[in-house]
Amino acid sequence: MNLITADFILTCNDNFEIIKDGALVFEKEILEIGEKQTLLEKYPNAKRIDSPKNSVLLPGLINPHVHLEFSANTTTLHYGDFISWLNSVIGLRDDLLEKCNDALILDTLQAMLQTGTTSLGAISSFGKDLQACKKTPQRVVFFCEILGSRPDSVDILFEDFKSKLRHAQELEDERFFAAVSIHSPYSTHPILAKNALDIARKENYVVSTHFMESVAEREWLDSAKGDFYNFFSNFAPNARPLSNAMEYIELFANTHVLFTHCVQAKDEELKAISNMGGHITHCPVSNRLLGVGKLELKNLPNKEIFTLATDGLSSNISLNLWDEIRAFLFTHPKESLQSLAKLALQGVTKNAAKALKLECGVLSEGKNADFLLCTLPDKVATSEDVALQLILHVKTPEQIYIAGEKI
Amino acid sequence: MNLITADFILTCNDNFEIIKDGALVFEKEILEIGEKQTLLEKYPNAKRIDSPKNSVLLPGLINPHVHLEFSANTTTLHYGDFISWLNSVIGLRDDLLEKCNDALILDTLQAMLQTGTTSLGAISSFGKDLQACKKTPQRVVFFCEILGSRPDSVDILFEDFKSKLRHAQELEDERFFAAVSIHSPYSTHPILAKNALDIARKENYVVSTHFMESVAEREWLDSAKGDFYNFFSNFAPNARPLSNAMEYIELFANTHVLFTHCVQAKDEELKAISNMGGHITHCPVSNRLLGVGKLELKNLPNKEIFTLATDGLSSNISLNLWDEIRAFLFTHPKESLQSLAKLALQGVTKNAAKALKLECGVLSEGKNADFLLCTLPDKVATSEDVALQLILHVKTPEQIYIAGEKI
Repeated sequence: MNLITADFILTCNDNFEIIKDGALVFEKEILEIGEKQTLLEKYPNAKRIDSPKNSVLLPGLINPHVHLEFSANTTTLHYGDFISWLNSVIGLRDDLLEKCNDALILDTLQAMLQTGTTSLGAISSFGKDLQACKKTPQRVVFFCEILGSRPDSVDILFEDFKSKLRHAQELEDERFFAAVSIHSPYSTHPILAKNALDIARKENYVVSTHFMESVAEREWLDSAKGDFYNFFSNFAPNARPLSNAMEYIELFANTHVLFTHCVQAKDEELKAISNMGGHITHCPVSNRLLGVGKLELKNLPNKEIFTLATDGLSSNISLNLWDEIRAFLFTHPKESLQSLAKLALQGVTKNAAKALKLECGVLSEGKNADFLLCTLPDKVATSEDVALQLILHVKTPEQIYIAGEKI
Repeated sequence: MNLITADFILTCNDNFEIIKDGALVFEKEILEIGEKQTLLEKYPNAKRIDSPKNSVLLPGLINPHVHLEFSANTTTLHYGDFISWLNSVIGLRDDLLEKCNDALILDTLQAMLQTGTTSLGAISSFGKDLQACKKTPQRVVFFCEILGSRPDSVDILFEDFKSKLRHAQELEDERFFAAVSIHSPYSTHPILAKNALDIARKENYVVSTHFMESVAEREWLDSAKGDFYNFFSNFAPNARPLSNAMEYIELFANTHVLFTHCVQAKDEELKAISNMGGHITHCPVSNRLLGVGKLELKNLPNKEIFTLATDGLSSNISLNLWDEIRAFLFTHPKESLQSLAKLALQGVTKNAAKALKLECGVLSEGKNADFLLCTLPDKVATSEDVALQLILHVKTPEQIYIAGEKI
């Protein structure tokens, strides 16, 4: 049994409670959390871990949406416009995937871990990240992805998907969870989506999908026009959208689902997602680099469904969630800074844990002991400043714990 | 005579010309710039400096607005609301200034240099940064600041200002330039401003001022209301604005002036600044942290007057201009990414040099040989991608030259 103290504990619970001069008692799970003096008296035999000055404890961060298989990209993909980017991905995919091996992905996961990401949702398009995700110390929700729009390929694609999913299922344990990703409304035939979602419902798998990322997607689904019309015309002369936006959302009824991006989603679509218990994943850096606009936070039906993620290095320069959170603050310059700080932290802790069905993300009794010890460079004026100052100053936590083990 | 080659040269000239497989011939100044093969043949005896793969040459960066005297702040000032921040500055000023010494400021300047800032505009409120700014290898435009609103203190304050300015004048050389800062319309009595500006006109000094940073400033100058009314009421019961916005701008007629922030400036004010040949300095991180809103780029009467700066560590977490530029991209998520990349680089090179009257900021014949050699982590698809990929990936240049000397 261990007892770690800190000047401040950000519980990241529903009330965003902050404990000044706090302590956390833990083994594999959190046994108790509270005031330092009280817990020191109650647990005199616990192994004590003292923290340096200006220390802050918080839950390990959770990145709910990462494409690890594109980690070889730095400067080669074309940014600024969604369809141009998509074309550059198609053009360079083989090159990038050739560079994608266990070593690269393990390095990437290690870099994420060192910056405090203790859990993640890995969107796996090709299964090339499976072994690395199994080996890494983090908790991984491994989203096997399905996509394909040609009706005559549906059977083959579905068999391939089931095979990838089986591989993931075989590796499941307390840190590795199989899950299902339906790529997007513009790329995945509804029959494929339905079949994959039936499995997700039956097995209680978490589901992820991209939704309303770009204006091109909006125009295509709404009116079969815009940049996607030209894009698809290159492959099939009479291409039509596979479903409209609301039909697509309804496919996900009775699943535990994350809709990623939603930049161009309408209010009624966001409400429909919220009403079905879904979460929304905001990737501000990716959205900026692909030139797709910006998610308006005021359109969110409630803040509980908000999660924040980096997307992959195919559309980001860093998988460090602290970088992403800082970019998030700049993306929304007219929102209250203190509210954004709180929302961002909840989006990568409590809300992300709920979205991925993980028993972490909040420092409270019974949760997994996944947490970070960070230090601030100086004192803060009040407890209310801790979340923001942490976001502004932390690059690498001092100590990282997963299931009570120091990493 | 030296000849340095690079895969790409960003000249940052008016046409934002990019030279592929280029070379730069230089001594203290740039002698010639052009294609590598041509210049190698023309200057066979020049000392050759080869660059690594994926190399990019560009002008040294210019940060036109920094408050070095507040470099001791990290977590103690209160962010999110301008007046709360101002109160925290007043409350902690003595503490922060006590920590402000030559060593701290030299360290800060060194960190700026290592990230590629070869010139800066230092806004000096107290003169505590004078010696460090003289010692540093960078070019420094040293803005001696004047402020004070009480009519009965005008004479004393002006004498004090002249004394600070004299100290700076005595140190002038080819890298250190005395200049004048009028703090702001809400803080500086017009008589003080006029007297200081008369000196600036006579001596041909560059002038800097803060302008329309916050909604509080807007409301105060327009209608003597808002948060500044309460703020000033604490000091003087019948306080009134010292001038209105347009009267304030007109004080600067026939000076070479930078207006910093302008977040809440009206179109006609921005036009008036542009018409008098003034520049506008955008500090996106500072604006975000102080919760003052966002400068709308579309309101700028032209892009030539745009400069970008970090402000001080009293309202920023980094004086690295690459960090500031990246934050700038996120602050304007709906603008064209490629256009922003170009605007940002011009804002810290060509435009900033013109604003500060420095003979650098563009790689062209006759300019000072202040430049950076950076490397990208991988190749880029086209020359048009270089500026953006540089911004996304560079943290520290490989080599830094000032007046042709490697630093």
